[in-house]
Amino acid sequence: MILIGERINAGFKDIARAIREHDPQPVVKWAKKQAACGADYLDVNIGAASRDPADMAWLVEVVQGAVPTPISVDSNRPEVIRAGLEALDGRAAIVNSTTADDDKLEAIVPLAAEAGAGIIGVAMDARGSPQDVARRVENGAKIFMACVEAGIPPEMIFLDPVLMPIRFMQEQATKVLEAIREYTLLSDPPPHISVGLSNICSQTRERSLIARTFLVMAMAMGLDAAICNVLDDELLDAAATAELILNREIYSDGYLKAFRMRRGGG
Amino acid sequence: MILIGERINAGFKDIARAIREHDPQPVVKWAKKQAACGADYLDVNIGAASRDPADMAWLVEVVQGAVPTPISVDSNRPEVIRAGLEALDGRAAIVNSTTADDDKLEAIVPLAAEAGAGIIGVAMDARGSPQDVARRVENGAKIFMACVEAGIPPEMIFLDPVLMPIRFMQEQATKVLEAIREYTLLSDPPPHISVGLSNICSQTRERSLIARTFLVMAMAMGLDAAICNVLDDELLDAAATAELILNREIYSDGYLKAFRMRRGGG
Repeated sequence: MILIGERINAGFKDIARAIREHDPQPVVKWAKKQAACGADYLDVNIGAASRDPADMAWLVEVVQGAVPTPISVDSNRPEVIRAGLEALDGRAAIVNSTTADDDKLEAIVPLAAEAGAGIIGVAMDARGSPQDVARRVENGAKIFMACVEAGIPPEMIFLDPVLMPIRFMQEQATKVLEAIREYTLLSDPPPHISVGLSNICSQTRERSLIARTFLVMAMAMGLDAAICNVLDDELLDAAATAELILNREIYSDGYLKAFRMRRGGG
Repeated sequence: MILIGERINAGFKDIARAIREHDPQPVVKWAKKQAACGADYLDVNIGAASRDPADMAWLVEVVQGAVPTPISVDSNRPEVIRAGLEALDGRAAIVNSTTADDDKLEAIVPLAAEAGAGIIGVAMDARGSPQDVARRVENGAKIFMACVEAGIPPEMIFLDPVLMPIRFMQEQATKVLEAIREYTLLSDPPPHISVGLSNICSQTRERSLIARTFLVMAMAMGLDAAICNVLDDELLDAAATAELILNREIYSDGYLKAFRMRRGGG
């Protein structure tokens, strides 16, 4: 399971302030906390806190100074992604994200290919978020093809079927589960499949329970990556248990601890 | 989700003693406790505590005197099943269980059909427990056909793909998940699909976590019934959340409580 820490994102007030004031402290704190929990990547997003690509470079540099964890350069603006990729110190990275729109594919996929980075392709297009399985599969397949044609190896491509808030679009969750199953059939071995997990529990009272329940249900269907709250112990225990059930984590009485240790987490 | 309470089983010492001494008290206690948690059926099993079919009749009568919950008459011996079914006061019931062996099918399926009861078909045969998906599907399909031919409506047939302890047969869990998916394709609408959930976490330290994680992963694949520990609050919360994700439980902030209330639980 590939866990991408969601916390260094200007959607959180402390990170937005840190970016505006170039205060490394909150960024370093969350980089270390998420790395200690065993994050495989740290997502880094300047969001609406800044329009300046140099601020993405600054954010990447601060994270790199704090931890050795690979980075997920998160923006929908090609110039911001480029600045983030150029700031990399040689470590592994993924670009988060392109959509299925031609202009996005043409601008963003080559950036990832040239940087030797992986890429997340979100199955959206100019018409907005997909409402059914077919659109998710169509957009996912289009992104997958464009990435392969650009020279990105399939094992560095992540497809995201667009998870939506269960509170407002409850019928979409099963469509996401079905789309995950379809994505596993796109190639052999299949691309990675990732979701923005916290989307599903937005504005619900049982955030952690809904997130971890969806996570393991989606893992049964083929999900193998998630941008999520890696500080949520119950989420990580659920992921470890799903890996055990899927026979990818060897059983021992202490498998929960072994899962954390093997990931470099505490 | 159809939840079958596992607790009135001579595998538990208090129930074994109650059967041997015809002491109704522990049986009444567990019948009421499980009903209060919203069990849809109460499994009733004299196990190795008695060879006498009359003891199954006694056990059914004690449960019926305590609660109005439907009963799962659990034995692999036709004469014990018959005694349990004859003791029914007209309430709904299921027979638990037949295997795919011809002698079991010939002896047990007609008992269920004549009683108007549902039936659980466990995908085992004389060769023992299935080790792959194909055997599970073959045996499940054979049982399904035999039940339909005997006049049992598809919506009263439960197929059980044989869940095994993850501690000792870790590779079997994914095969069970795949078999569940295959069972959903057997008919339209599909038969019910059930597992003996506590089997998977036998002799593990994280019993509840493993059970509830498998449950929701299996629900994503099509499971809609389980013989389980209905007193496990975290298990029921996980089941409620999976129902929410599968769009079978309507979202509200209090959906966990609504799930219990709607089931008649407290």
